[in-house]
Amino acid sequence: MLRLYDNLISGNGYKVRLLLTQLGVAFERVEMDIFQSATRTPEFLARNPNGRVPTLRLEDGSHLAESNAILCYLAEGSAFWPAERKARAETLQWLFFEQYSHEPYIAVLRFWAHLPELTAQQQAERPGRKQRGDEALSVMEQHLEGRSFFVGERYGIADVALYAYTHVAEEGGFELGPYAAIRAWCRRVREQPGHIPITEG
Amino acid sequence: MLRLYDNLISGNGYKVRLLLTQLGVAFERVEMDIFQSATRTPEFLARNPNGRVPTLRLEDGSHLAESNAILCYLAEGSAFWPAERKARAETLQWLFFEQYSHEPYIAVLRFWAHLPELTAQQQAERPGRKQRGDEALSVMEQHLEGRSFFVGERYGIADVALYAYTHVAEEGGFELGPYAAIRAWCRRVREQPGHIPITEG
Repeated sequence: MLRLYDNLISGNGYKVRLLLTQLGVAFERVEMDIFQSATRTPEFLARNPNGRVPTLRLEDGSHLAESNAILCYLAEGSAFWPAERKARAETLQWLFFEQYSHEPYIAVLRFWAHLPELTAQQQAERPGRKQRGDEALSVMEQHLEGRSFFVGERYGIADVALYAYTHVAEEGGFELGPYAAIRAWCRRVREQPGHIPITEG
Repeated sequence: MLRLYDNLISGNGYKVRLLLTQLGVAFERVEMDIFQSATRTPEFLARNPNGRVPTLRLEDGSHLAESNAILCYLAEGSAFWPAERKARAETLQWLFFEQYSHEPYIAVLRFWAHLPELTAQQQAERPGRKQRGDEALSVMEQHLEGRSFFVGERYGIADVALYAYTHVAEEGGFELGPYAAIRAWCRRVREQPGHIPITEG
């Protein structure tokens, strides 16, 4: 059985939990205490040298890291991964956008909101990260105006990846009120068969 | 013909230039003055709302962004993209590692070295980015010990993506001296048929 090293606060972990559930694939979940550096032990670093959740143990005992790579691996051959070459490329474009232009701002400010206090460095970085996160939301809003989903008018892993931290962006201090297309898209994502909330393991 | 919006200083652009050349695919290159915000004009934002190079204009007139998504699109069906499912997943794992754990540190410090002066914020962030970049190099070094290339003992787009900023990391203040496996891998990458240097358009 697949084994997911995870943490319930992680939107990156939630992506994988959500897709596995919607695919109907059985898995066991191991909750890692990321606030106690559980992913930095020698035992865990042997599974993922980059020391992060989610990390997925495959049936053959090997491990796969990087949430969006795991989504691609699991979605191959399913309705969540486009059959057409250009739609696959657009899906990957949004997955890389999510990791480079969205997650470092929207996910990180949410994570920082869970810390007892911020360092001086974090406080100094907060305004810049807030601005970059708003820019990412603007790019999403513009794309979603007149569209139902990110790629090919069909729910897929680009939506799974971007929904994970967008729908909880307000926990990090972002306001979704001005983004009508994003809010409507969030509702459509929640209506998909087999949807689970981020708090569900 | 494919048209690549690019800048010769960009390692992300270099990835695409290098792969297109090695695939033997003809393309025209448009040099964008990224220091003069050429990617932030309304005309360019209509091509890529995220306002970045590289952006690739496809034969049908549509545009594809995100260097690593472009690599996947171009490599499909070639020897640079693995035929086996797990090797594809491992390739994507390294591509996401590159964009999340490598580029924001190693590429950004190199870019900052080209600026006339750093802001106080950039100066404050520099030590943290240096440390994260060294951590990324350590993960790469550990993986490459005993391996020829990143995935499946075969040169592919994971190597293209990671080579782009690694081989010029010293321009940003990183030292490659301690990383023997990385230096040997860089030599193997440079020996591949059709290799071009980052300075070549």
